[in-house]
Amino acid sequence: MEQVTVLGAGSWGTALAIVLAENGHDTLLWTHRQDQADEINNEHTNKKYLPSTVLPANLRATASLEEATKHGKTIVVAVPTKAIREVCGELSKLLTEPKLFVHVSKGIEPDSLLRISELMKESMKPEQIEEIVVLSGPSHAEEVVLQHPTTVTAASESLAAAEKVQDLFMSQYFRVYTNDDVIGVEIGGALKNVIALAAGITDGLSYGDNAKAALITRGLAEITRLGVKMGGNPFTFAGLTGMGDLIVTCTSVHSRNWRAGNMLGKGLKLNEVLEQMGMVVEGVRTTKAAYQLAQKHDVPMPLTTALYEVLFNDKEPKQAVDELMIRMKKAEIDELR
Amino acid sequence: MEQVTVLGAGSWGTALAIVLAENGHDTLLWTHRQDQADEINNEHTNKKYLPSTVLPANLRATASLEEATKHGKTIVVAVPTKAIREVCGELSKLLTEPKLFVHVSKGIEPDSLLRISELMKESMKPEQIEEIVVLSGPSHAEEVVLQHPTTVTAASESLAAAEKVQDLFMSQYFRVYTNDDVIGVEIGGALKNVIALAAGITDGLSYGDNAKAALITRGLAEITRLGVKMGGNPFTFAGLTGMGDLIVTCTSVHSRNWRAGNMLGKGLKLNEVLEQMGMVVEGVRTTKAAYQLAQKHDVPMPLTTALYEVLFNDKEPKQAVDELMIRMKKAEIDELR
Repeated sequence: MEQVTVLGAGSWGTALAIVLAENGHDTLLWTHRQDQADEINNEHTNKKYLPSTVLPANLRATASLEEATKHGKTIVVAVPTKAIREVCGELSKLLTEPKLFVHVSKGIEPDSLLRISELMKESMKPEQIEEIVVLSGPSHAEEVVLQHPTTVTAASESLAAAEKVQDLFMSQYFRVYTNDDVIGVEIGGALKNVIALAAGITDGLSYGDNAKAALITRGLAEITRLGVKMGGNPFTFAGLTGMGDLIVTCTSVHSRNWRAGNMLGKGLKLNEVLEQMGMVVEGVRTTKAAYQLAQKHDVPMPLTTALYEVLFNDKEPKQAVDELMIRMKKAEIDELR
Repeated sequence: MEQVTVLGAGSWGTALAIVLAENGHDTLLWTHRQDQADEINNEHTNKKYLPSTVLPANLRATASLEEATKHGKTIVVAVPTKAIREVCGELSKLLTEPKLFVHVSKGIEPDSLLRISELMKESMKPEQIEEIVVLSGPSHAEEVVLQHPTTVTAASESLAAAEKVQDLFMSQYFRVYTNDDVIGVEIGGALKNVIALAAGITDGLSYGDNAKAALITRGLAEITRLGVKMGGNPFTFAGLTGMGDLIVTCTSVHSRNWRAGNMLGKGLKLNEVLEQMGMVVEGVRTTKAAYQLAQKHDVPMPLTTALYEVLFNDKEPKQAVDELMIRMKKAEIDELR
């Protein structure tokens, strides 16, 4: 039994905390909202994020980041990508000993173009970080809490750290495999949200499954191209955290990136979509970052570029998809053969 | 304008004949049923296969294989995989000059383990065959007739032949790219039906999107492993005819292989499923052939093996999927990382 802290009580953070608590670990879930912490401790529910789930009795919550920081030898960071820099900055003020960090976030910071693990390293002191492990894969929280079989990857530059995280989370229905390709896992996880937005747009345009499959295939090809140029392993992109996660995100109505794209395809403007969603659409930020990464590394990413034009330069979604699908240049589609 | 014959008036053969006729080619569609030929010629419909589609006025049909054989300089073979050997044998008796053949079939012949183009070569004389091109990719007929954007690959050992086929079919909404990797395209197209059956089983067991995405990922990994050993190009499996076609087949309720798997997952026996479907489930034959290919080429294919046990040795689907997903051995999942 280990002491583990999970930061962030959204659906994914809560689902992971449940897996840990069920595995017998002394698990503390942190939320910045006192009423949510009280609900978890007193009612054993987190109705806003997992309406039908009863939490294990041994899963406790706190609204004190200080208590949360002290508690876990391992700290799972499950806050929204946008909040990572701020939360890690706060952690840095509280940490008195090194911790093993696990992050489950998917994104790239625009402008700085940092991956999540790089961002975490920049926000804390080296002596506060034992290792960083990224946990990623095709994994809807809604299915994990129903104990449906789910497979994910724990990746770290330190295989020992990845194996430690594997031991913490591994259960009958939650299968964890290890990998040492942090770059490939982080780039694949982040950029699949760009493709999910684009897949939502083709569905919003009612272009059908043929078009969507072509787009997803093309999307993974350009993600792989970029990721390999950045130092990732091509096999990672063909695995659970690349293709696997991409499929689940692009073909499920659970995905908020897909839903946002779907609204764009139906004719709504970006500001209207973001207003209607009422929550973060990570793919929008990631599209900007991916566009910048493509330029920085001089990698052709026609799908990302088309989506960037739709989101930030008012290009018509139909025109963008038609150019990708129909007026595609031969040179651009070699990877699709 | 060219003279083209399409053999087989199922949904896919008819959809391709429509694309050709719309492109202005003198297109003749062959069916062995005189009443179906009459319906196409007189009513301009093919209601059994494409209930809501009006066929172009210039698309003609015949029930005479002799007339069909004489008509086209290019002959598109769109009969069920099971019928290819017989139909090509009949063609061989009628052919008096070499033709360019296009096949759109997905399968491997059990026992002989021949790919479709090999089977065609074996069933006709060398001097009757100008070249053979395989046309494949993510392409539901139901969407093509609605002119939804669709991308496919024309593959041949002869690039000139592939480009000829590209010219015949290419239109505003039907995009054709060329490839020289016939082995990769044929193996990917055939074996995706095995994975679609397995994906249907996990859905029938209500295991959810996480499990299905892991299974599809694992499936493509083992198809790629086999195909590369047989001489295919690994990039083909990551492209339209590999990953693209696999996604469309595994995530669409249109797919009869997925539907058959779904019924197996819900507890029906294979003979009950085949009876209920009332039509060929190509994936069942292909599973047998894939299992034999795995043994012949000494390639580990755990998913194919598990499905083989379910279909032919009465293994419980739940037990087979649980072994794949849950009791997976570490050595077996290296490709999934």
